[in-house]
Amino acid sequence: MKFCSACGKAVGLSIPAGDNVLRHVCQSCGAVHYLNPKLVIGCIAEWDAKILLCRRSIEPRYGLWTLPAGFMENGESTDEAAQRETLEEACAHVDIEQLFALVNIPHISQVHLFYRARLRQGDFAAGMETLESALLTEAEIPWQALAFQSVTFCLRAYFADRTAGRFSFHETTLRPGNY
Amino acid sequence: MKFCSACGKAVGLSIPAGDNVLRHVCQSCGAVHYLNPKLVIGCIAEWDAKILLCRRSIEPRYGLWTLPAGFMENGESTDEAAQRETLEEACAHVDIEQLFALVNIPHISQVHLFYRARLRQGDFAAGMETLESALLTEAEIPWQALAFQSVTFCLRAYFADRTAGRFSFHETTLRPGNY
Repeated sequence: MKFCSACGKAVGLSIPAGDNVLRHVCQSCGAVHYLNPKLVIGCIAEWDAKILLCRRSIEPRYGLWTLPAGFMENGESTDEAAQRETLEEACAHVDIEQLFALVNIPHISQVHLFYRARLRQGDFAAGMETLESALLTEAEIPWQALAFQSVTFCLRAYFADRTAGRFSFHETTLRPGNY
Repeated sequence: MKFCSACGKAVGLSIPAGDNVLRHVCQSCGAVHYLNPKLVIGCIAEWDAKILLCRRSIEPRYGLWTLPAGFMENGESTDEAAQRETLEEACAHVDIEQLFALVNIPHISQVHLFYRARLRQGDFAAGMETLESALLTEAEIPWQALAFQSVTFCLRAYFADRTAGRFSFHETTLRPGNY
């Protein structure tokens, strides 16, 4: 951030009164511009005991597999974001069940949330950012070709819970070494 | 947002290629500026069966009571944010136990997360944004003087669970009518 989005003049780094963190502050109008973590929201959507995965047609991680997920938008709720992303990336309508996992990735200032969900029909397809979508059994999950560590964490916890016959809520923090 | 934070020139609203939402796009350098929901994170910190509350010394809701909570910062995890906010607002060190509630407030593009926590010692005080802090029993909660509906939701669910002898995870969406 180099310029003020309110007045277009240069911003500099300083600690505002009553604060204790360096912020981007406009040197002309004084506006303080805060930078905050972004929410990435998706779902583990099941149909006939299979999980809906998407192979990415965009960077980063082009060609690798992921759960349908993406940046939450202003004006929506977290469950609506999970439904929207699944519709956009896998052309699938889902009913949301429960929040399943929260994954902190502080070094990139992201928080990932994944919901358990069910496909309404068995229908799905490849959305704009997807090369192909597929419903996969646990044995078919391409563990070595998953796009993100948060997806790996989520799927491992999901299958462990499903095998145990009880879903619980899972939380973890990924650091640079294990991301 | 009127100006590009990358180059300082004017931005306009348009739908970028491959997108389906109006974005702030720089008319000079083409940078797309996304606006995303913010996370507000806090905790329900217990000590001797009492809950730590803070009376706000800042707007909005000056003088009303709240759980220690605030905007998550870049570079931290959600549990670290809950600990930091409790230290800043109530001068109290807490150990985080588990995520207790997620409250969506889509019309102001916020997601509130509250953790269950325990004070490490019984020590607390008023932080910079707090008139006074207090450890209150359930009977002492000032229900008519709580600052935010998300705090009311959270405290009601907390006491109901505590009475039932089992804490579970709670999620809700507040709309303008019930905010």
